[in-house]
Amino acid sequence: MKKLVLLLCFPAAVMARTPGNDDSVFIRKIANSALTERSTYQNLYNLTKKVGGRLAGSPGMVKAELWGADALKAAGADKVILQECMVPHWVRGGKDKASFIYTAGGKQVSAPVNVLALGNSVGTGAKGVKAELIRVHSFDELDARKNEVKGKIVLYDVPFEETFVQTFEAYGKNVIYRAIGASRAAKYGAVAVWVRSMSHSVDNNPHTGSLRYLDSIPQIPAAAVGLRDMEKLDSLLDQGKTLTGELYTYGKMLPDTIGHNVIGELKGTEHPEQIITVGGHLDSWDVNEGATDDGAGVVQTIAILKAFKETGYRPKHTIHFVLFANEENGTRGGKKYAEAAKAAGEQHLFALESDAGGFAPRGFTLGAPASLDKFNSYKPLFAPYGVEGFTAGGGGADVDPLHAVLGTAVSELRPDSQRYFDVHHAANDVLENVNIRELKLGAVNMAALLYLVDQYGL
Amino acid sequence: MKKLVLLLCFPAAVMARTPGNDDSVFIRKIANSALTERSTYQNLYNLTKKVGGRLAGSPGMVKAELWGADALKAAGADKVILQECMVPHWVRGGKDKASFIYTAGGKQVSAPVNVLALGNSVGTGAKGVKAELIRVHSFDELDARKNEVKGKIVLYDVPFEETFVQTFEAYGKNVIYRAIGASRAAKYGAVAVWVRSMSHSVDNNPHTGSLRYLDSIPQIPAAAVGLRDMEKLDSLLDQGKTLTGELYTYGKMLPDTIGHNVIGELKGTEHPEQIITVGGHLDSWDVNEGATDDGAGVVQTIAILKAFKETGYRPKHTIHFVLFANEENGTRGGKKYAEAAKAAGEQHLFALESDAGGFAPRGFTLGAPASLDKFNSYKPLFAPYGVEGFTAGGGGADVDPLHAVLGTAVSELRPDSQRYFDVHHAANDVLENVNIRELKLGAVNMAALLYLVDQYGL
Repeated sequence: MKKLVLLLCFPAAVMARTPGNDDSVFIRKIANSALTERSTYQNLYNLTKKVGGRLAGSPGMVKAELWGADALKAAGADKVILQECMVPHWVRGGKDKASFIYTAGGKQVSAPVNVLALGNSVGTGAKGVKAELIRVHSFDELDARKNEVKGKIVLYDVPFEETFVQTFEAYGKNVIYRAIGASRAAKYGAVAVWVRSMSHSVDNNPHTGSLRYLDSIPQIPAAAVGLRDMEKLDSLLDQGKTLTGELYTYGKMLPDTIGHNVIGELKGTEHPEQIITVGGHLDSWDVNEGATDDGAGVVQTIAILKAFKETGYRPKHTIHFVLFANEENGTRGGKKYAEAAKAAGEQHLFALESDAGGFAPRGFTLGAPASLDKFNSYKPLFAPYGVEGFTAGGGGADVDPLHAVLGTAVSELRPDSQRYFDVHHAANDVLENVNIRELKLGAVNMAALLYLVDQYGL
Repeated sequence: MKKLVLLLCFPAAVMARTPGNDDSVFIRKIANSALTERSTYQNLYNLTKKVGGRLAGSPGMVKAELWGADALKAAGADKVILQECMVPHWVRGGKDKASFIYTAGGKQVSAPVNVLALGNSVGTGAKGVKAELIRVHSFDELDARKNEVKGKIVLYDVPFEETFVQTFEAYGKNVIYRAIGASRAAKYGAVAVWVRSMSHSVDNNPHTGSLRYLDSIPQIPAAAVGLRDMEKLDSLLDQGKTLTGELYTYGKMLPDTIGHNVIGELKGTEHPEQIITVGGHLDSWDVNEGATDDGAGVVQTIAILKAFKETGYRPKHTIHFVLFANEENGTRGGKKYAEAAKAAGEQHLFALESDAGGFAPRGFTLGAPASLDKFNSYKPLFAPYGVEGFTAGGGGADVDPLHAVLGTAVSELRPDSQRYFDVHHAANDVLENVNIRELKLGAVNMAALLYLVDQYGL
């Protein structure tokens, strides 16, 4: 029945072999295995509660690499490779702290502000920075008011757009203020920046994330501010109050250090020279357990390997199950993997990534040279597990370099996005905020996609 | 463009008016209003944190009715009606407690068990019940071992099926053990039953829910057991240990008491005599805040009213926004609403319910006489907001009586189901486990459906 539907809809997709009932049955086997597998939760538990935070270059990351290698072996990898990769080494250096001061009823009032220094940022050191806050709602406003900025702390107050149904669109629109807001403000003489957290959560957790300093502009401290404290600041600024901000951060960029992509391999039976990659990134921010970002992708990657082993599936192509070394503040892991592949003359057929959280799966993005029509003809095979279809798009930060360097077709799991920015880069990205069944369903759909690529190509 | 697609796919759906671009634009207006509306979170906060648990007949429910009437007025109802409805009045009566005792290394060992008395169950009273546990995995096994049951506590150990992707299927399969397991065991002389919680959550919260005693069989105490404690019990029973259970519960069914369906009305402009209903149930279990079950449905109902008012939409048909009085342990609210409608000779065109949680919306169930084909032709209008389509099915417990009594077309929002049974009837059904954006997206799709029914009929 499924076969018939597929042929009617996409006669052009007829091949030597076409997906049919057997595939539906095998994917059901994969699902039954993955949904009842106990090690998946245990892996996430161990990664979040025993390893914990694991920023590139940190002791946590060293622990994570060893854990990852063991977990891939335990899941049944033919072999595990530690691929050396130089990674940035930023340290927070201390406990971030901030407050604001204003005058009310003739008295000075001071209130704390929940902040986290942005990744890669320089610290204020113990002497701190104390200056008047100037609030702007866009770079245009910053530019228009450039003469008012000197000696002040610029407060970037750009709310997440709530009417965008896909939260990644809101992030895509606003993240520029976190990424280069410090340099844009420093150009006009600002002494620090505070950035409204990239979130629309209801709590007050600040959300860190990396910035990059633009060349030849002084590097100034930068911190993310929790949303409930932003409301307080907004309320006072709306009343015309003059606010003085005080910030203490201790961030420092140390010399690059050694990290590793952790690669589990299943050797292909028919085309061992052609590689299919699936992965997530092993590093996380230092302030949380990295359960959603990207413990989920890591554990899904291992769960897929385990499901293939449990169901006795031997892939035709070689599959690499990759835990990437560094995504958060440098994307060095994916770049290294692609460069090494090119240097070794490897053939990479396809690469799939999970770095949008372990939430209920909704679809995949997929890029050339894979045929979107062909993969959308597989929809009935995915429908029982929640994936609605394939949309044009790249992979994520870790597999896109393979496309850039070798032209590999790349893809990314697209889970439901509503909760992602509630925990993204914040202290509440912990095990308890992951639903293990949603995570497993993501792995089921990913495994199904890898299986179909392995069987029927692109 | 959308109009064209619809006409091509469903030529039979051509009517005097057909949905088109204007509808897409209006639904976007509804979405923008609902997604940015502040009162929705505030309503859920007030209902969960200020009103709290609200089992039918409890002081919490009285508070909830007053809160609901005020909230509907504040959202802009033309009028609010309190429809009297006799409700069951069960009280827990005390703190449920249980433990199990076994012999290890010649010594008696006792360990606590997390339990909650089932709703409507009789209590053990302060003297408690102490008896050997007999574990069964099905009613068939119970029947086969009926001669072993007398004087014992029957432990129903039927795990939620993890390979069912839709969790409501697992619930549908197992809930019979909670519903009538006590009577089935009492028939063979059991003194109490313990039921494995209806959940596959990773925590140890017991999940209560109503039972019903079958006529002419002695009523025995019944309690739900947390899943981590079930693992301990299973482990010892698998080793062949004899376990003695001890249970203290204090449940009592008091005489029926007065409750109310709280009905907010928007009068129709063209067909005021024809009523469209949307609602959720106001009652919750006593052990939690009823945030998901069914604070979500209640708050969505109010959010839809608010969105219609904010966008200036005056419906052609009269719309009832109903907060039902009693679903959990009697479904008296929905029955009363339907009986009263029949008695008053009301015409009910359509009724929509939300009682599957405030999770990311995926679809709707829909029953006759509404045309499934017609509503599926509206899919492009819902796609931007997450709903994938309509499947055949009834409404929920609160609107199904309208169908039974008046033949009304009924429908229910179908959110993603993975997390529902993590919190269902358990202590962790609290505000913090609801994502307000997911809840709002549910309201957006519900509002869109009501609008389309109001404009284009069934």
